[in-house]
Amino acid sequence: MSRIWFESSHFEELVWELTEQDLTDPVLRDAMNRLKEVLLYNAPGGKRNRGLSVIGSLRELVPPTKLTQDTVQRALVVGWCIELLQAFFLVADDIMDASVTRRGRPCWYKKDGIGLDAINDAFLLEASIYRLLRRHCRNQPYYVHLLELFNETSFQTELGQALDLMTAPPGHFDLNRFTMERYKAIVKYKTAFYSFYLPVAAAMYMAGIKDEEEHRNAKLILLEMGEFFQIQDDYLDCYGDPAVTGKVGTDIQDNKCSWLVVTAMEVLTPEQRTELEACYGRHDDASVEKVKALYDILEMPSLYRKYEDESYQRLQKLIACHAQNLPHAVFLNFAKKIYKRKK
Amino acid sequence: MSRIWFESSHFEELVWELTEQDLTDPVLRDAMNRLKEVLLYNAPGGKRNRGLSVIGSLRELVPPTKLTQDTVQRALVVGWCIELLQAFFLVADDIMDASVTRRGRPCWYKKDGIGLDAINDAFLLEASIYRLLRRHCRNQPYYVHLLELFNETSFQTELGQALDLMTAPPGHFDLNRFTMERYKAIVKYKTAFYSFYLPVAAAMYMAGIKDEEEHRNAKLILLEMGEFFQIQDDYLDCYGDPAVTGKVGTDIQDNKCSWLVVTAMEVLTPEQRTELEACYGRHDDASVEKVKALYDILEMPSLYRKYEDESYQRLQKLIACHAQNLPHAVFLNFAKKIYKRKK
Repeated sequence: MSRIWFESSHFEELVWELTEQDLTDPVLRDAMNRLKEVLLYNAPGGKRNRGLSVIGSLRELVPPTKLTQDTVQRALVVGWCIELLQAFFLVADDIMDASVTRRGRPCWYKKDGIGLDAINDAFLLEASIYRLLRRHCRNQPYYVHLLELFNETSFQTELGQALDLMTAPPGHFDLNRFTMERYKAIVKYKTAFYSFYLPVAAAMYMAGIKDEEEHRNAKLILLEMGEFFQIQDDYLDCYGDPAVTGKVGTDIQDNKCSWLVVTAMEVLTPEQRTELEACYGRHDDASVEKVKALYDILEMPSLYRKYEDESYQRLQKLIACHAQNLPHAVFLNFAKKIYKRKK
Repeated sequence: MSRIWFESSHFEELVWELTEQDLTDPVLRDAMNRLKEVLLYNAPGGKRNRGLSVIGSLRELVPPTKLTQDTVQRALVVGWCIELLQAFFLVADDIMDASVTRRGRPCWYKKDGIGLDAINDAFLLEASIYRLLRRHCRNQPYYVHLLELFNETSFQTELGQALDLMTAPPGHFDLNRFTMERYKAIVKYKTAFYSFYLPVAAAMYMAGIKDEEEHRNAKLILLEMGEFFQIQDDYLDCYGDPAVTGKVGTDIQDNKCSWLVVTAMEVLTPEQRTELEACYGRHDDASVEKVKALYDILEMPSLYRKYEDESYQRLQKLIACHAQNLPHAVFLNFAKKIYKRKK
């Protein structure tokens, strides 16, 4: 049901609101048309897990009899705000990383006539979040909490991106920077806050839960899941079946600070390290195959299974100790989706 | 007095708050050091008129006996937030416009080792606004108004930048796009909202004035001033004395959609237009001199004086009719600073 509502048709209605319903000053027509194009190209098209998590979590936090149609509608709007936040980051990250494709199409800045103007387009995506929140949630008691939550999460994600950029700067190569501590910091700040804590925290505020202790506890659990999710993503980039994941990994070629290379750095011999340094971040097939062979020798699949099991145990404990008044299903629904996934 | 407080030393205290006082997670140390560098390079160094306008306006709106030291402090913080908003836009605009220098130094993205990572740095400047507002104004009744005001003003400025980019795209040349209607739309959205309405509106909210009618009236007056200010800026770019303005204008070379070229387009003959098309946006001295000679033939200085007088009359009328309960000094102080200025 929510999934049906959380569709492009719903988003198109929001685009109409954002571009035609207010600010109808005719001198803005060209700018509004640009905003419309930017929204339609960049916000839909992903898996929408983050956006869907808002309504999914809210359904666990509020009894069905108390969940009005208006509240459901607002949760879907907040879900789209998270998708917009992601679109804002992806448009900008693709420029900074000099990426070429995104979701199987050219990156926005790579399209004809766009180029660096995409920077301003990213700002417009971000601004759309706050216009939607204002239109739909202004009279709700949790309005200011949502504003603060989106602001804080943006800042955390930007700190994560700053760390990522200084750890693996395109063109510069230094495996010494690839430590597990740095890796975990990047994952936590760049991905886990906005992908895992943000949707659940938004649902909690919408359900009237603003106690700081409860938020701290939920955060502990959700950041653990976020870390696991990214590590799994890194693992599947190399060991996943492209027929299942739908993409061919290029982390080795792209000199990514991936869990695999960081874990390898912790266990390899000086000779193996010399080999890794010679081959990592290179695009020729022979180098890539050498890195993969090294991963196999170091038994990465079994190190990964070990990590996965331990993380799962940690998570169960965190939920048991820290979920407190929150229904465990909020977290378990998430966990079910991500542990042992193949794509 | 306020000017003394609104100095780099005050800003350095805010930088310390933003980078060392909370979020002390040691894994963030490198990211926080980056943030510090970005703040110190980009936020101070301007004329600070916008930031100073907050406390200046507040002093007109609140009787001295009711203006506590805490309120003054908060107004200075909000003033710095406007300077941060400007820094956020300038860092990004310089990338989009391929600019080289800013305030007599290299643009941030032009510095060694920065490049397009400056995009994320711009985001960090923006996020710092909301962290400061949260720290300093969270318990104030006007907190949510300030959040909405900064969000809305950012969006308006971004729409203005979108219009500007599509009107004078670097590398493409089409004088047909340079209409007075488009020019005024760009000035209003890209400059006037954040430079003129924002500081006064922030002071109004801080003084407890949130009535929409009063804000609409103040906006009318301040946007008229903003338009005049930009037109004057465009005029001085060509006709100002570099010894007084401190800068040598390059709007002609840079193919800028300036008031001078837009006004010229309205009055020139077909022959003069052919000449303008051949010379505008070119860097050789001969072309620039030809454009300037054409401006002289069209009597730009006298057209400008005429505009300046009319704008001043319009402004006086707007203040008389629309200032309502607001002390006229709020607007007149501004007006005194900008009309007949030479730099």
